[in-house]
Amino acid sequence: MNQPRLATKQDMPRVLELINELAIYEKEPDAVEVTVADLEKDGFGDDKKFTCFVIEDNNMVEGLALVYTRYSTWKGNVLHLEDLIVNEKHRGKGLGKKLLDTVVKYGKNLGVKRVSWEVLDWNEPAITFYEKNGANVMRDWDVVHLDKTGIENYLKAL
Amino acid sequence: MNQPRLATKQDMPRVLELINELAIYEKEPDAVEVTVADLEKDGFGDDKKFTCFVIEDNNMVEGLALVYTRYSTWKGNVLHLEDLIVNEKHRGKGLGKKLLDTVVKYGKNLGVKRVSWEVLDWNEPAITFYEKNGANVMRDWDVVHLDKTGIENYLKAL
Repeated sequence: MNQPRLATKQDMPRVLELINELAIYEKEPDAVEVTVADLEKDGFGDDKKFTCFVIEDNNMVEGLALVYTRYSTWKGNVLHLEDLIVNEKHRGKGLGKKLLDTVVKYGKNLGVKRVSWEVLDWNEPAITFYEKNGANVMRDWDVVHLDKTGIENYLKAL
Repeated sequence: MNQPRLATKQDMPRVLELINELAIYEKEPDAVEVTVADLEKDGFGDDKKFTCFVIEDNNMVEGLALVYTRYSTWKGNVLHLEDLIVNEKHRGKGLGKKLLDTVVKYGKNLGVKRVSWEVLDWNEPAITFYEKNGANVMRDWDVVHLDKTGIENYLKAL
């Protein structure tokens, strides 16, 4: 098995396929509005919004980890893992662990005091994997979203 | 009451006081490692990590909202509200709502499709306030942290 490598622009069509696969698994099949062109611009343009690592199996990209920095008012710069995805048919081979290794090393090199991410509370295989690797799944912290319609409605009510 | 305004470097000592106040409320009194110098550098240096709005009451900063952009693989650029804080003695006067108004308008101007934040599941006054304003508190999404010790232990085990 190969080691993870930095993604290139040419990987973005496959990356979007994997993003869509995860959205289906997370029961939000219609949530993905991002396009290949968006990923190319946002990952490889003048104003880079993220860093993406990919891992291959049999010369095909079968997993990815997409990260960016955030700012914690407690810890300063932190690294956020937005997506860790391994294609369903290639799970159980250690691809996810190799990707997480790469992310933690990358965070260490950046000097961050935390790597953060989010998980669905029913995704037990993911939670077991994260906890086994020393992460703290904080069940008392919930994620809040004001979506596009919410933004519009909020502003109309002002 | 004044409207929120962009924070200046000179506000950072008071901003750190409010950050510490929130950490105590959230039962993590020792979690704040950020210093005034960090906030000055990270908010006003060459490589800006956040934007901070503050609101005054009787010529004293009594509330703040600190935001930055993140990258959603579903929605592209999104705005994240890291902290929304109002000094305990100045709650119930509408300062928090004015700050949230400013954040949502700021997100709209950036063209984001989402404003996100995180909340403790026992913080009912905050949850009630957010839901009243159209936000979706997603109780099935948990926050995961690998902290500084976790990062060290993870890398030692490789």
